[in-house]
Amino acid sequence: MDNCVFCKIAKREVPAAIVYEDEAFLAFLDITPLFEGHCLLITKSHVETLADLPPDSVGPFFLAGQRLARAVETAMGAQGTFVALNNKVSQSVPHIHLHVVPRRKGDGLKGFFWPRSKYATAERMNEVAAQIAAAL
Amino acid sequence: MDNCVFCKIAKREVPAAIVYEDEAFLAFLDITPLFEGHCLLITKSHVETLADLPPDSVGPFFLAGQRLARAVETAMGAQGTFVALNNKVSQSVPHIHLHVVPRRKGDGLKGFFWPRSKYATAERMNEVAAQIAAAL
Repeated sequence: MDNCVFCKIAKREVPAAIVYEDEAFLAFLDITPLFEGHCLLITKSHVETLADLPPDSVGPFFLAGQRLARAVETAMGAQGTFVALNNKVSQSVPHIHLHVVPRRKGDGLKGFFWPRSKYATAERMNEVAAQIAAAL
Repeated sequence: MDNCVFCKIAKREVPAAIVYEDEAFLAFLDITPLFEGHCLLITKSHVETLADLPPDSVGPFFLAGQRLARAVETAMGAQGTFVALNNKVSQSVPHIHLHVVPRRKGDGLKGFFWPRSKYATAERMNEVAAQIAAAL
């Protein structure tokens, strides 16, 4: 992809603070981090979303992500990590990137999963579950 | 784990709106969803965080997560998904659970990755990258 900034980083056409590289993947610091040490793991080849990742790349990609999560936590002296993928919506660059973010209690992100709702009725909840099960 | 609610769901001792099951994993609706169709994928055996997931389970777990992400998007008529793991900090149940959340433009979660910061200097950024690279 000629205009993809993450492809350019993979090809060393755009600089980045690289922390990890293997044949298929690359990890570097997000330049606008949630917290210092916030990394992005990408595929070197252009893949847009998790759904598009070839099945035989899924294991290696997340094994690299697991390794990166351990390293980010250790290196930053953190208490945990937040590991996330935005697919299509809120995805700033349309090239798969796994966010690996160091977390600490009281770091201010505590409420970021809110507001949460509840299903109006148990029937509605079962209806939604059935819809998803049918799509699997 | 005797007191783990997700172990109890896996053993069918606590009810849940299950959408997917195989030998090793189970997915069900989060009862306090970000949006309807928000699912949690868990291991049936008690594993606490991504770092603790055995290497030979990483591929199968995220292949199931990939399949679930596709199904949630399709079933809910969504435009994308948010796929995330909280490890230790902000992890409400200490049993690995992959959040798979349907997303739509303008759904109100747009800003949830903010506020972001910047590294004070390029030197600080390189220092942080070197720390993480050394821990890998």
